[in-house]
Amino acid sequence: MPLNALVAPQTDPTPIFEMFRNGYATELLTLAVTDFDLFGLLAKNPLTFPEVCDRLKLAPRAANVLLTAIRSMGFVNFQNGKYAPSEAAREHLVSGEYFEVGGYVGLVSDAPQVRAMAQCLKTNKPMKNREEDTGAAFIFRDGVTSAMEQESSARRLTLALAGRAKNVAPSLAAQIDLTGTKTLLDLGGGTGIYSIACLQKYPHLQAIVFDHPQVLKVAAEMGEAYGVSDRLILQAGDMFADPLPECQTILLSNILHDWDVPECETLVRRCAERIPTGGRVIIHDVFLSDDLGGPYALAMYSAALFTLTEGRAYSAEEYRTWLRSANLSPQPVRPTLVHCGLLAGAKG
Amino acid sequence: MPLNALVAPQTDPTPIFEMFRNGYATELLTLAVTDFDLFGLLAKNPLTFPEVCDRLKLAPRAANVLLTAIRSMGFVNFQNGKYAPSEAAREHLVSGEYFEVGGYVGLVSDAPQVRAMAQCLKTNKPMKNREEDTGAAFIFRDGVTSAMEQESSARRLTLALAGRAKNVAPSLAAQIDLTGTKTLLDLGGGTGIYSIACLQKYPHLQAIVFDHPQVLKVAAEMGEAYGVSDRLILQAGDMFADPLPECQTILLSNILHDWDVPECETLVRRCAERIPTGGRVIIHDVFLSDDLGGPYALAMYSAALFTLTEGRAYSAEEYRTWLRSANLSPQPVRPTLVHCGLLAGAKG
Repeated sequence: MPLNALVAPQTDPTPIFEMFRNGYATELLTLAVTDFDLFGLLAKNPLTFPEVCDRLKLAPRAANVLLTAIRSMGFVNFQNGKYAPSEAAREHLVSGEYFEVGGYVGLVSDAPQVRAMAQCLKTNKPMKNREEDTGAAFIFRDGVTSAMEQESSARRLTLALAGRAKNVAPSLAAQIDLTGTKTLLDLGGGTGIYSIACLQKYPHLQAIVFDHPQVLKVAAEMGEAYGVSDRLILQAGDMFADPLPECQTILLSNILHDWDVPECETLVRRCAERIPTGGRVIIHDVFLSDDLGGPYALAMYSAALFTLTEGRAYSAEEYRTWLRSANLSPQPVRPTLVHCGLLAGAKG
Repeated sequence: MPLNALVAPQTDPTPIFEMFRNGYATELLTLAVTDFDLFGLLAKNPLTFPEVCDRLKLAPRAANVLLTAIRSMGFVNFQNGKYAPSEAAREHLVSGEYFEVGGYVGLVSDAPQVRAMAQCLKTNKPMKNREEDTGAAFIFRDGVTSAMEQESSARRLTLALAGRAKNVAPSLAAQIDLTGTKTLLDLGGGTGIYSIACLQKYPHLQAIVFDHPQVLKVAAEMGEAYGVSDRLILQAGDMFADPLPECQTILLSNILHDWDVPECETLVRRCAERIPTGGRVIIHDVFLSDDLGGPYALAMYSAALFTLTEGRAYSAEEYRTWLRSANLSPQPVRPTLVHCGLLAGAKG
């Protein structure tokens, strides 16, 4: 009896992920005070985003993660194009103020996780994979050793990530419309669980999981376990370098958040080129608020992505911009689970 | 013009402390999954508190901090004297369950702060003071070097803690009733800021700050700055070993939370012995809910205290028990600021 990827969980795992990521609040708030004096800087003069990047010597990605987090906590406001401290931050987080508590916050500034986050922010590079010391966890790039290139770590990481995907896959299959799609291309599909759920819902669908060879070994096992291996095609390749198969529908499920803006634009464009008129590129991801001010839970997720990948969380508006640049028409967001949603761009 | 300790802040600094302490959620949730398999254990059979201590090989203090945190997150329930996983925890945090996300949570199990917390829990000992490597930060005990015994670190830590105390002192002075008190004994009074606020409010009051010599140097400066040094007596001593002065009112402001239950009982008793009939021992601290199930913000504070001291956060009911054992009658709690409140025990 094959497993059923369409059965949804009885309870929502979202609070578990939220609690799990709370540590980024400690790290980013501490660094805003100790290493960046963000509140002191903004208390002198409200600054624009490029000015913050310049003054703090931060790449836009790093500044974005820091500012989104601090704004989501309510300690920085964004008005008239400029960032300024909240009233509470002005009173309590500016050095030398009578009611300052920055010294208290600064007590953990030398803790290893705070230093590791400082290093990420200042270099705009993901954290080294501590345990395996084999380089960045989820990214593939010339000159960067990825844990995904080693079979044992690839398997462990892929299965760990699958825990979340299994919970979300039934919602994705319920929300995605694949009527009229003969073949779905699941770019960077990992275990293939999203494809598998779609294959179980649509009996005439084929799906191609496109990923690195070590990851596809796990996808092959999953295809067998869920009884869809006859319609699950596994294609090894590099989504930035190799030709992508032509398909009616291309799914980018939790992929773009691993990459910085230029790579996202490239990938959306590469996908758009491989779909026919009437075809769709479907982004499945979390969406920051369009003003990038939160919400808090996604600001924490963005920090996680920042330290693990070359990406961060993006807003629906950022994704829409890239879809439009690739001549795709953004469709309304359809929520799935664990903060995620589907945002399709239709061609023609 | 002396400083005024009675002026309250315009804005509430509480959310800053809350955000700052969120990292303990990451550490404790991760360890509940990875090192302790708490949810797997409780899913087999709900357990009593002594059973949890026994099965996890945790001292009561450590088990208390872990269980209060996980309960405050909503992942463990306490019913009929036993702990059991919530429905969501049963589905998502028990190893081998289809919708388990424990592998995802486990990805950070080797992070240094998670290992450091594991060490604290398993040994029931505070973290080493990383930066100065001079031992535990806030405790004084034979054979334990305390950062407070070195002038530079004592000064830095004392002033860092004072950032919070300055915000709270005006509320304490407003809520505490010292009519009829000639001399207030401020045990472990640190900078003396609470005494100073009381001295400014009550012009005929004297206060004795009783603390370690290096700390009293800071209190002396503060007494000068606030213009109350003529009524601020600085007495060096060890509150567990040395005789305490007799006083009408003894204040234990954020002191008992640094110590484990037997020391708290001893200290409350030592204080009760030094007040006359009609006198009071006043505890100023945070209060966990009486069932020790939260709230979340104080569960995080309890974790902070656990890693920095030999104590944790206690419930008002725990404090009342110790007051009653010392023949003191607990009075109603009067809230101050930053989650704190006053709980007095009256003699006779």
